[in-house]
Amino acid sequence: MPHTHHPQWERRKSWVEVPDGSDFPIQNLPFGVFWAPDRGHRAGVAIGRQILDLGELATLGYFADPPLPDPKVFHRESLNAFLALGRQWQRRARATAGRLLDENTAQLRDNAEHRRRALVDQSEAEMRLPVEIGDYVDFYSSLEHAANVGKMFRPGNPLLPNWKHLPIGYHGRCSSIVAGGADVRRPRGQINPSGDEPEFAPTRKLDFELEVGFIVGKGSSLGAPIPVEEAADHIFGLVLVNDWSARDIQQWEYQPLGPFLGKSFATSISPWIVTLDALEPFRAEGPEQDPRPLPYLRTGGKRNLDVELSVWLQPETEPHGLEVCRSNFRHIYWSMEQQLAHLTSNGANVRVGDLCASGTVSGPAPGAYGSMLEITWNGTAPVRFPAGAERAFLEDGDRVTMRGFAQRGSVRIGFGDLSARVLPPAA
Amino acid sequence: MPHTHHPQWERRKSWVEVPDGSDFPIQNLPFGVFWAPDRGHRAGVAIGRQILDLGELATLGYFADPPLPDPKVFHRESLNAFLALGRQWQRRARATAGRLLDENTAQLRDNAEHRRRALVDQSEAEMRLPVEIGDYVDFYSSLEHAANVGKMFRPGNPLLPNWKHLPIGYHGRCSSIVAGGADVRRPRGQINPSGDEPEFAPTRKLDFELEVGFIVGKGSSLGAPIPVEEAADHIFGLVLVNDWSARDIQQWEYQPLGPFLGKSFATSISPWIVTLDALEPFRAEGPEQDPRPLPYLRTGGKRNLDVELSVWLQPETEPHGLEVCRSNFRHIYWSMEQQLAHLTSNGANVRVGDLCASGTVSGPAPGAYGSMLEITWNGTAPVRFPAGAERAFLEDGDRVTMRGFAQRGSVRIGFGDLSARVLPPAA
Repeated sequence: MPHTHHPQWERRKSWVEVPDGSDFPIQNLPFGVFWAPDRGHRAGVAIGRQILDLGELATLGYFADPPLPDPKVFHRESLNAFLALGRQWQRRARATAGRLLDENTAQLRDNAEHRRRALVDQSEAEMRLPVEIGDYVDFYSSLEHAANVGKMFRPGNPLLPNWKHLPIGYHGRCSSIVAGGADVRRPRGQINPSGDEPEFAPTRKLDFELEVGFIVGKGSSLGAPIPVEEAADHIFGLVLVNDWSARDIQQWEYQPLGPFLGKSFATSISPWIVTLDALEPFRAEGPEQDPRPLPYLRTGGKRNLDVELSVWLQPETEPHGLEVCRSNFRHIYWSMEQQLAHLTSNGANVRVGDLCASGTVSGPAPGAYGSMLEITWNGTAPVRFPAGAERAFLEDGDRVTMRGFAQRGSVRIGFGDLSARVLPPAA
Repeated sequence: MPHTHHPQWERRKSWVEVPDGSDFPIQNLPFGVFWAPDRGHRAGVAIGRQILDLGELATLGYFADPPLPDPKVFHRESLNAFLALGRQWQRRARATAGRLLDENTAQLRDNAEHRRRALVDQSEAEMRLPVEIGDYVDFYSSLEHAANVGKMFRPGNPLLPNWKHLPIGYHGRCSSIVAGGADVRRPRGQINPSGDEPEFAPTRKLDFELEVGFIVGKGSSLGAPIPVEEAADHIFGLVLVNDWSARDIQQWEYQPLGPFLGKSFATSISPWIVTLDALEPFRAEGPEQDPRPLPYLRTGGKRNLDVELSVWLQPETEPHGLEVCRSNFRHIYWSMEQQLAHLTSNGANVRVGDLCASGTVSGPAPGAYGSMLEITWNGTAPVRFPAGAERAFLEDGDRVTMRGFAQRGSVRIGFGDLSARVLPPAA
């Protein structure tokens, strides 16, 4: 697969209209699963404001040579069966979509009936969770985030001694991972703000965490660690992740076994998986790693990706939202490949569809903090909105929108909005 | 479902031979998934040394009235589709098996052809993981275990302030859960015994943890907590769990987000799910809970189960093993129902097939400690075997066998052995 890129790359266009600034030009072609009343569940590829229905393409015979090993693989409720066909088929499907959508390819462009059947307006489709996630690991790989949290809760000892030696992570709950757009209800839980007697109440410190996750596209066997130099082969693509957090629940529960109910009520992911192939032109240096990692975590070359990230916060009472964070995935200290090598270094296996999230991606500057906890420094410096609202943490009715894209010239490889509203606690 | 029991209960017998002391009399009838060369995957019920093949029973028409909603539900690789049929079908299947196996029922007993097809010798079947586990939560619900570990690692502050207010737990890895009998390879990982510089090496502190887990038989919806008084309706049955642990990996990695690679290399569960219905006659008082739990965790009546637990350790060089632990599930402080109510109290949903483990079940006396960490007090008091072997932690070639049963008179409701050998690290 070519990782280089050149002027031709930027000039490539589709016959499908792609508005200026769209996240989904022909250079992107991310994969997702949608549902439409007349189609049921289908795998699709985003292009402009449309979806190319891969299931319909298969039915129409566009995957006949070589034939799809499973003719119904794009008619499933998740991409897992498709991903299990292997990297060759993953790339072939994207290449076929790219060829058919290219402005110079007449095959689909000039066949009105096929075009009508193969394209679905995004506004007429419901996006579903793109994969069945067997295991979800949340890492903690931003040095700035770890240091910020450490300064607040362990002033004398902000960064723990293990942090620069291994990518700290923990397992999160899979059942409550939802596809972007689903509103999130404020959870109840045990909190103990006074430190005296705990109570059971709606969280008062609801927060977001801006993260980037990767989806495993090739599994591994129990007992067979993935070498760090082969880890990229196991990464199908990336999604944005909002790791919703209830700081007060987390604070009371997390010793000694880590976060549990402070996180497990909901995790939102963007429904389009942007392939690692589409992002390879945006490889970037990561921060220097000192001390030098142990050999099993050592990588050469550009280990990070230059993906701009932002968070918009919009209270219900405010006419306009504010960008409360602008960060970049290239700030991450431990790369995806290092995370995957570490995760499997004890012999643990990964499966197709697994999700690994980065942890909050905070940048070095205060404007680049990826959680309200850091932005407002645990509520001590609230965000002020033009019409007067103030926010220490999230309030009911607030809308949180995360965006991410890599850009060169006018070409933007984006994730689409990951946007959700906070609902009041259940009655 | 009757939870009472009376002399008739003990006298009930099957026409299938059940050896004295068997874990699988007609009063038990646990569910599992087995594989046999001529059958493929089948759901089955254990009886004595045999398996009643539920798939074959369905094919032979024994589930015709009322008809199974899905005639192939017992031909799957897991019990999930069967469990999803609901509690009524779960009970109906077990009742049908019990009726057909009863010494006074001629229907199968006297039909040689059907009997031959419906019964499989356990020695001719391979047991598989009985369910597809969507989420695995490991609790930490034994007061004795938490206090022992606390005394070793936080002498000034053994039991953390949250422990008696909520059932502490964390999510474990699902991909590496294996059905009992599979050997377990010693993992490698980052360890830092000197506290100076970490190294990547095979663990030197491989341990077992004796736990009891429950399998969710009825899911819940995101945003809808399960009230503690309804929690038992969501529990299908119980398994033994060996939560293999690498103490040195865990020690170096676990701050601040909890155990990760120190646990994720393998978790063994016993392949037969003993139904909660079969164990209801063994309800027992739990330890007094002081302070009184918050209302969402408050239960009346007997919240625990009287299940004897033991661990045998057998080094390769020793002619005989030793029972290194004898404990009881009734010692557990937080009950299964409290765990499930807590787990969903923030709105997190559970799904059919989910596994929740108790955490190490240690009893009050030293002989009742459920891990080598506690038994040898972090290696300071090794176990001595008759032929001279000593064990601080597990060595390669060691066999660990966990057993569990509830008994009244001559009737034993058991789990079968959960036995696995430690293999040396991969080359």
